Amino acid sequence: MTLRISRRAFLVATLAVGLLTVASAQGQRGIDPLPSWSDGKVKQSIIDFVARVTKAGGPDYVKPAERIATIDNDGTLWVEQPLYTQFVFALDRVKALAPKHPEWKTTQPFQAVLEGDTKTLEASGEKGIVEIIAATHSGISTDDFNKIVADWLATAKHPRFNRLYTDLIYQPMLELLSLLRANDFKTFIVSGGGQEFMRVFADKAYGVPPEQVVGSTGATQYQMWDASPVLMKLPKVDFVDDGPGKPVGINKFIGHRPIFAFGNSDGDKEMLEWTAAGRGARFMGLVHHTDAAREYAYDRDSKVGKLDKALDEAVAKGWTVVDMKNDWKTIFPKVKATP
Amino acid sequence: MTLRISRRAFLVATLAVGLLTVASAQGQRGIDPLPSWSDGKVKQSIIDFVARVTKAGGPDYVKPAERIATIDNDGTLWVEQPLYTQFVFALDRVKALAPKHPEWKTTQPFQAVLEGDTKTLEASGEKGIVEIIAATHSGISTDDFNKIVADWLATAKHPRFNRLYTDLIYQPMLELLSLLRANDFKTFIVSGGGQEFMRVFADKAYGVPPEQVVGSTGATQYQMWDASPVLMKLPKVDFVDDGPGKPVGINKFIGHRPIFAFGNSDGDKEMLEWTAAGRGARFMGLVHHTDAAREYAYDRDSKVGKLDKALDEAVAKGWTVVDMKNDWKTIFPKVKATP
Repeated sequence: MTLRISRRAFLVATLAVGLLTVASAQGQRGIDPLPSWSDGKVKQSIIDFVARVTKAGGPDYVKPAERIATIDNDGTLWVEQPLYTQFVFALDRVKALAPKHPEWKTTQPFQAVLEGDTKTLEASGEKGIVEIIAATHSGISTDDFNKIVADWLATAKHPRFNRLYTDLIYQPMLELLSLLRANDFKTFIVSGGGQEFMRVFADKAYGVPPEQVVGSTGATQYQMWDASPVLMKLPKVDFVDDGPGKPVGINKFIGHRPIFAFGNSDGDKEMLEWTAAGRGARFMGLVHHTDAAREYAYDRDSKVGKLDKALDEAVAKGWTVVDMKNDWKTIFPKVKATP
Repeated sequence: MTLRISRRAFLVATLAVGLLTVASAQGQRGIDPLPSWSDGKVKQSIIDFVARVTKAGGPDYVKPAERIATIDNDGTLWVEQPLYTQFVFALDRVKALAPKHPEWKTTQPFQAVLEGDTKTLEASGEKGIVEIIAATHSGISTDDFNKIVADWLATAKHPRFNRLYTDLIYQPMLELLSLLRANDFKTFIVSGGGQEFMRVFADKAYGVPPEQVVGSTGATQYQMWDASPVLMKLPKVDFVDDGPGKPVGINKFIGHRPIFAFGNSDGDKEMLEWTAAGRGARFMGLVHHTDAAREYAYDRDSKVGKLDKALDEAVAKGWTVVDMKNDWKTIFPKVKATP
């Protein structure tokens, strides 16, 4: 097959396509990319930053390959109160696995979970939490674990909002992720939460694919089951992606320093510092939970998502602090976020 | 500004653009995407696989998000004989650092390196290698380390070819990477080599950005130097991305199972098995070094890049095995690969 196209048709086509492109750009200028954010300083700081680093030839221009954004998950992209969602999952798994572990009836902290004894559970502290996570996140293959998480997320509901956890994601942050991606940022989640747990829902919920989800990891081991390879999850912590672990995780999993980072707690302090310390234009943001009516209000004294030192540093250094009550018109998506 | 475009101009434009797209596709059909590969079974197995998984509506179609390719580095993308390039770098670093370490004059394996005593160095075995890597890859910040690697790669030359190491990359594999990326594959390096060492050159040499380079990692620690954060490299192995570690690394760093994997040694066996064990169309490939004249010929008895069990498995299971001498028309790029 030979193709012929007249010079005139080609010129008309070129011109028409050029005009359509301009028309589309014009149209975009009129669309608010962050409709759930109230107009004001916070919203403007985001829009200005994106405009500065994407302006070709401008003093703050950053080439697309270096437009790395790292964003925390618990309390930054979805609700973390009254308990981290992954911990709720782990408590449900203790109940589901109890018939296979009769010894748990008389062994703490499992006994406390099974008896709903919150006081003893709290008293078991971090050691107890680690034991519960280890017992419920190991002894199965990665494929089986992913299926269990997916099944749980499809039915478990938040005690206050009575909605699926994957529906309790923040609409303003979804718009922020879209704005960043539309401007050739690569958006990464960098969270203290379990990497494999988050990867089950991050693509559907946030549009962040598995390879862009950085989190805490447990050790796995390559094993052969009936001549078929599996990765077994071992009861051993491999890496904790929290606090000073966040820059370590960013270096390990991403290998660039971010130019944009968003968090909500003291566990994000070092990630924001690491981002701020790079050369050129930088954006550091914190979500401050100030809205007890629509979500939660907590900061310096909270057991979950404590925000104290990072808030002081943000104020001192002029980082962007979102006042949830005033800066966010909407909290959750109106339609179900997951099909 | 209001834009008007006549319906006729729009239709002409649409038609013309449609015709141009077809014309371009026609053109592409005539271009050989793998010109450095000899025509034959091996080349055809690659082209057929890419065609099958990208054919919309076909039985083997794979959506772009799942088109994950994992490719080894040493001996698969660049020369690994007579010594792994990173080990040559480490030996040079021992010499450069010797004035600051007078004790090395009388401490093995450092004394052997400084005296060029290959016999003692070889006798120090894996323990000796680990000591040399630890001593030369720690005690500095990640930023400083990257600069040292970049400076070394810009000047160090291969003893036989007298060319920069980054020029001794395989032209056929560069074409393969391009073919995969043109078909919406995401190409990852998955290597036993040091992740930070490879990230310094992988983007320039192969077009693989840092976040798609998976390798062995050393521990790092977040530290404050004069109120400025750095990541210090510690003399501690964090993760060995080799053998059964490769599926572990793929799961940890990528979070998808690849549909395409290429290696060249027994260290790639488990990566190929893990790839093969997934559902749907799969491609497993090995580079067999059979060309002593243009590169090297080695396999079952080699100390570097030993290929024994993986070769048997590849033959038994019908994986693609590249016979370098016959399947590759060219080995190295003709022009310098790095500017």
